[in-house]
Amino acid sequence: MRLESTLNEPTRPDQQPRTPSPRPGGRSARVRADVVAATLAEVAEKGYDGLTAEAVAARSGVHKATLYRRWGGIDGLVADALTASADQPWPLPDTGDLQEDLRRITQEVFSVFTDPEQSPTPTALISAAQRSDAGAAALRDFFTARHHQAAEVAERAVTRGELPAGTDGAEVIRAATAPLYYRLFVTGEALDARTAERAADAAALAARAGLFASIPTDPEPDTAPNTPDQ
Amino acid sequence: MRLESTLNEPTRPDQQPRTPSPRPGGRSARVRADVVAATLAEVAEKGYDGLTAEAVAARSGVHKATLYRRWGGIDGLVADALTASADQPWPLPDTGDLQEDLRRITQEVFSVFTDPEQSPTPTALISAAQRSDAGAAALRDFFTARHHQAAEVAERAVTRGELPAGTDGAEVIRAATAPLYYRLFVTGEALDARTAERAADAAALAARAGLFASIPTDPEPDTAPNTPDQ
Repeated sequence: MRLESTLNEPTRPDQQPRTPSPRPGGRSARVRADVVAATLAEVAEKGYDGLTAEAVAARSGVHKATLYRRWGGIDGLVADALTASADQPWPLPDTGDLQEDLRRITQEVFSVFTDPEQSPTPTALISAAQRSDAGAAALRDFFTARHHQAAEVAERAVTRGELPAGTDGAEVIRAATAPLYYRLFVTGEALDARTAERAADAAALAARAGLFASIPTDPEPDTAPNTPDQ
Repeated sequence: MRLESTLNEPTRPDQQPRTPSPRPGGRSARVRADVVAATLAEVAEKGYDGLTAEAVAARSGVHKATLYRRWGGIDGLVADALTASADQPWPLPDTGDLQEDLRRITQEVFSVFTDPEQSPTPTALISAAQRSDAGAAALRDFFTARHHQAAEVAERAVTRGELPAGTDGAEVIRAATAPLYYRLFVTGEALDARTAERAADAAALAARAGLFASIPTDPEPDTAPNTPDQ
């Protein structure tokens, strides 16, 4: 049985995706890792419309009844694959310069989503997550977590005196990466390395000008942005 | 018969969406306007998964056979609704100041996509377009057309001497609006008026610094952005 026929029905309380709480290294954790890997592989190959609990069960070696009981169904599997992805370590650049750190972050996004080897899985996962409320909630949590993790590059810049105190680091990261995701997932326009670099540069410039400080200066057209102390 | 069962099949050449070439004011143009309006209403109410040629036919008063013949099916209807939307006049601000013009543009995007009255149709149309190749192509053309239309605010700023010659106006518009669409259609994070304003300000700052000039200056961390002449 495919789950898709039930996708547009209202979710009943007992169908809410359940995120397992694995004991690290335990059997539950291994089952989850296998199921997440199988879900990622299936969604990359077949997309949301081709995703079935049968195929995830076959690929992971986990019984379909277990998938339904622990994940609630396809949307819970997609959501948990995102949750698991958010937990993956994500090494941040630390070059000592905000602009260079941001360039490396946008270069990483550019590489992941334009490399034919790397791009299918995250691209399919994001698209699949947009197809259900559970997926959309996991997607929001995933990006919010990433923004706050990566905010560290802005926080270090504040510590160095490169950015004003009170700068919203997550907002700096959003500013740097939004022009890339905008092309990739909204307009479908071409994305190149120069665009990725420029997005980082624009975000660094705005951050230095205090645009992302929590008590924003009100930049007037004829006010020159702050220049860094260095 | 619903068309959805055929959506994931390869498109045969005779199923390619055909964009009618209406004679303005003629019967063909009226038929197209009725069909586009019905498609927009249906997609806003029911989403892509609930969109049927029957319902568009019933709502528009145009025979289903005509819809298939002229639009090829659901995806052609969605694509043509976008094409028709791109042709709608879109009044641009002209305040004499780039930053203020950009603020009004991002405020307009913010208003349209967060107003419960206005947002359902464009939101559903964009989501529906992402579901097929024909829709994705129309979506890309739609945004590219909008970017180039709105580029006029940057071109005027170049004429006024507010921006460097050779500034890519469409890129300035992308920079200003991307942070909004990123939240609306990728991360699902909350969008507020302050974020919309700040996105405009950051784009204006980057444009003034020459980041969107065709022969980009290479901004160094310790180089102050250009200040406008005024």
